[in-house]
Amino acid sequence: MPDYRAPLRDMQFILTELAGLEAVSRLPGCEEATPDLVGAILEEAGKFAAGVLGPINRQGDEQGCRLEADGRVRTPEGWQAAYNQFRDAGWIGLSLPQEYGGQGLPKLVSTPVWEMWFSTNMAFTMLPQLNVSQAEALHIAASDEQKETWLHKVVSGEWASTMNLTEPQAGSDLAATRARAEPAADGSYRLFGQKIFISYGEHELTPNIVHLVLARLPDAPAGVKGLSLFIVPKYLVNADGSLGEHNDVRCISIEHKMGIHGSPTCTMSYGDKGGAVGYLIGQPNRGLETMFIMMNEARFGVGVQGAGLAERAYQFALDYARERVQGRDAVSGEAGKPILHHPDVKRMLLSMRARVMAMRALLYTAASWFDIAHHHPDAEVAAKHRRYVDLLMPVAKGWCTEVGNEVCDDAIQVFGGMGFVEETGIAQFFRDARIITIYEGTTGIQGNDLVGRKILREGGATLRELIADLGASVLQLKEDEQLGEIADGFAEGVDALEEATDWMLANGKDQLADVLAGAVPFLHLLGTVCGGWQLARAAQAARRRLVAGEGDAEYLASLVELARFYIATIGPQAAANAAVVREAGGALTRFAESAF
Amino acid sequence: MPDYRAPLRDMQFILTELAGLEAVSRLPGCEEATPDLVGAILEEAGKFAAGVLGPINRQGDEQGCRLEADGRVRTPEGWQAAYNQFRDAGWIGLSLPQEYGGQGLPKLVSTPVWEMWFSTNMAFTMLPQLNVSQAEALHIAASDEQKETWLHKVVSGEWASTMNLTEPQAGSDLAATRARAEPAADGSYRLFGQKIFISYGEHELTPNIVHLVLARLPDAPAGVKGLSLFIVPKYLVNADGSLGEHNDVRCISIEHKMGIHGSPTCTMSYGDKGGAVGYLIGQPNRGLETMFIMMNEARFGVGVQGAGLAERAYQFALDYARERVQGRDAVSGEAGKPILHHPDVKRMLLSMRARVMAMRALLYTAASWFDIAHHHPDAEVAAKHRRYVDLLMPVAKGWCTEVGNEVCDDAIQVFGGMGFVEETGIAQFFRDARIITIYEGTTGIQGNDLVGRKILREGGATLRELIADLGASVLQLKEDEQLGEIADGFAEGVDALEEATDWMLANGKDQLADVLAGAVPFLHLLGTVCGGWQLARAAQAARRRLVAGEGDAEYLASLVELARFYIATIGPQAAANAAVVREAGGALTRFAESAF
Repeated sequence: MPDYRAPLRDMQFILTELAGLEAVSRLPGCEEATPDLVGAILEEAGKFAAGVLGPINRQGDEQGCRLEADGRVRTPEGWQAAYNQFRDAGWIGLSLPQEYGGQGLPKLVSTPVWEMWFSTNMAFTMLPQLNVSQAEALHIAASDEQKETWLHKVVSGEWASTMNLTEPQAGSDLAATRARAEPAADGSYRLFGQKIFISYGEHELTPNIVHLVLARLPDAPAGVKGLSLFIVPKYLVNADGSLGEHNDVRCISIEHKMGIHGSPTCTMSYGDKGGAVGYLIGQPNRGLETMFIMMNEARFGVGVQGAGLAERAYQFALDYARERVQGRDAVSGEAGKPILHHPDVKRMLLSMRARVMAMRALLYTAASWFDIAHHHPDAEVAAKHRRYVDLLMPVAKGWCTEVGNEVCDDAIQVFGGMGFVEETGIAQFFRDARIITIYEGTTGIQGNDLVGRKILREGGATLRELIADLGASVLQLKEDEQLGEIADGFAEGVDALEEATDWMLANGKDQLADVLAGAVPFLHLLGTVCGGWQLARAAQAARRRLVAGEGDAEYLASLVELARFYIATIGPQAAANAAVVREAGGALTRFAESAF
Repeated sequence: MPDYRAPLRDMQFILTELAGLEAVSRLPGCEEATPDLVGAILEEAGKFAAGVLGPINRQGDEQGCRLEADGRVRTPEGWQAAYNQFRDAGWIGLSLPQEYGGQGLPKLVSTPVWEMWFSTNMAFTMLPQLNVSQAEALHIAASDEQKETWLHKVVSGEWASTMNLTEPQAGSDLAATRARAEPAADGSYRLFGQKIFISYGEHELTPNIVHLVLARLPDAPAGVKGLSLFIVPKYLVNADGSLGEHNDVRCISIEHKMGIHGSPTCTMSYGDKGGAVGYLIGQPNRGLETMFIMMNEARFGVGVQGAGLAERAYQFALDYARERVQGRDAVSGEAGKPILHHPDVKRMLLSMRARVMAMRALLYTAASWFDIAHHHPDAEVAAKHRRYVDLLMPVAKGWCTEVGNEVCDDAIQVFGGMGFVEETGIAQFFRDARIITIYEGTTGIQGNDLVGRKILREGGATLRELIADLGASVLQLKEDEQLGEIADGFAEGVDALEEATDWMLANGKDQLADVLAGAVPFLHLLGTVCGGWQLARAAQAARRRLVAGEGDAEYLASLVELARFYIATIGPQAAANAAVVREAGGALTRFAESAF
């Protein structure tokens, strides 16, 4: 497999021209994120990804993880050394609070960095990603004393983190959670129950593991309003900070999965020997709220996984298409040309590149909104960006993971028969990617979140606001004649979005089931249009620079073509999805369940 | 994994109402295919598939194949017993010539039978499928003497078959074939060279293996017009029919693949010890023509694999969705409902069912055209159906394999996290399916075949003929008010097809590269419209029977709804693909290869 090439030029263009890195670096608390520092960080991260994480990705897939008879989980060769380097370089704390040892850089800076980790080794990167999510949750919900004990070590990566939600009967439906916590005399709790699908639930890469566990207190109300959140360490921590005895928690099995073999997926058993010691985080029965903070962070991260895997799959397929000589030119009959020369192969690769750039631009832009929401001194500006982040979070997760899978699928197709052979290496990306539309909430869950919680609940107010912004972009695009086709095509997508939105809002009350039947198609519609929006903005920025005579003209011109290609060939999916939004529900209602 | 349930009702409906089984059974040479006999065969095949092939599918995936140090290839446990039963029951010869021991039944009858084999065990079924393809080729091209020696045993399954085309530098491009054949004094040949990706190239399931090998004679012209076809048996055959010495051919490695683990994919080496004895089939330098007969047969079969895998994945996901209880009803808030009740899950399953039925209806209809082309006494009728078969063969292969993959992908999504765990079993279908858009010609190759060879070469004559038939169907649909929505939606698809066809034919000469850039989208467009056509015809037939008061009213009504759902939610892909057909080429031309 060829080495990973950090796509720094694309990243820098999006950071600078679309996501407003300079404006973000002027926000209070973000001043350190100067273009120079960011450039240096990206360069360094690119080297680390290519030099440390990429080279062990394949062996992670081949070796997988093993649960030994003594209960230890063995991770692949190279994991420990890579983790030590990753931890020592301080990558985990990149965007985490400075007071707990992080660097406090904006999410806009950490997003491209994490994209590189996911590109080169997703199974490995899930481990430090859990630290980041957990740190966000602890930072918001834990007491000062708890932060002292746990947060520093989670931010530094001295200890690892996990997130324990799922149980056999409680997957997407956390209301069905059964794990329970009983108060102990010393103010701590004893936890009992089984959790499944726990990534990195057990391993020896760190001396301790901090489990964050969702469980019910005695007499807690039924449903999601009776869930509390607990820290349950693998090893108890003594008053002096040293590690004490092994807590009553263990991994009882690990899953045999289709992909991400390097990441152990554990079934965890709590309280087999009298109760696992746990500490309540935040208020009783409010655990889900905190868990959602962690989950939202993780959901955005999974969206970034989609872009990261797709970038690497694209690079890999492109290299193959440039090297592999096969067939003749259909027009001239000339032989000896690489397959990139075949129209269908070139179409696939251009489409892959367009989708990768659309995902990346959408994710980085969303990251900048996140930073503005957190740091902007003008409360109204901050609030608007918070609304946008909330609205688009399910799209960032749902759409980027679905598209990420599609791109990995196309990469296999470019390789032909060689793509089906494991030694080639591309199959791993296809297999690894298959989990991302599932974990941290399936695409169906994201669709319901988008339509139910983010749109219908507020009568579509934020979505209308966004559509108005999209319309303003259309007008701006029209100012440049060279962007006329892009503007027209993009406007069609916006129209389709608006019509589908009208329909959804008109029917959301009386025909909720019908509207929800179209939730995932609507998510695709919104993602397709927002992706096109970002590429159209990129074309606009490229044109500005071309007109000003700045920058690499060939590169800038290619960005205009990329937008045109996306709008012309992927853009029509907007109308197709809008049709499904309107039609799916009625058809479902008429189709009896017994007729399947 | 739940047992396979042969979808006999759906199969029978399509055979009877759409594919004209009765008319086919009146064709000369097809008289044995009475509805009674066909019903009995399907029932028997369903039992065999569920009882013999299905139960060993999973172990085939888990155990895979192994090349031993002594050069033997070990297939999974159960393969030998299943093969013996399969062979003894005479399934291989179902549609093969009676004079060589087959039953000579129409392709319309064998198609649903093979669908069942693929549904339950694709990796296994690839073995007897090779016999059928090879038998077709030998029947057409071999001499009578050769047929005596080889064909009986291939039809009976006493010996196994392979197809040796690919070499490392000659994948999609057979012109690059280097394997060579030298004439020997006795009229036979000595073959030298290496072939890769040879399914079942070596195994011990049969006492002999008949390799069909593409190679060049000395002084053969360059390119595809210099390829000849040879029989190269694993063991030489003595004059009395007994097996002689081991030929100079051996398997030197087997591939480690993402799926179809139960099918050994071999690298075969010919002539390491002085030359493998081979026998020329047909005329020198005309080997590709014969190989294409075999390949066309195999391509249709791969399309059937798409439908078969999708049917099984659909059944499996449906069973899970009916059993798995999770979440609350979004409208009533009621808990305890299986996930099939969630609109998004129901939408996925209905879409899966609609696509499976569309593929099946298209394949069976194409099979009936094949039978009419071969057996109809009216030469004009026969010729028209031959044209239709030729036109739609790349669609049957390309579209059904792409859609088959999509359905298997959706099945994983219905399972959520459990779908990613290998023990569940659905992941195997997803992995197995990934090869079908690649082997026997990638989707890109099918697209080029469709647009270049089947449409442009004849100025679109057959396609125009088909479009006229589609237009006639629209008018027929409109006669029934209850089918008005279907008629309108279908008409939009036909319009999109017609416009894209016009554009393609107008630009095919001057802008061939642009047209080929849209070849795969055009294939999808044609497949989507033809699939909708078949479901619309099914709705029409169902309505006829409903009006007449015949049959199961609930089932018939569900077929009308299925067509409506397909037209409303999948139909819009026609227009989206038509847009890509028109736009892709120009964008590709403008995008410099250096800008990737």
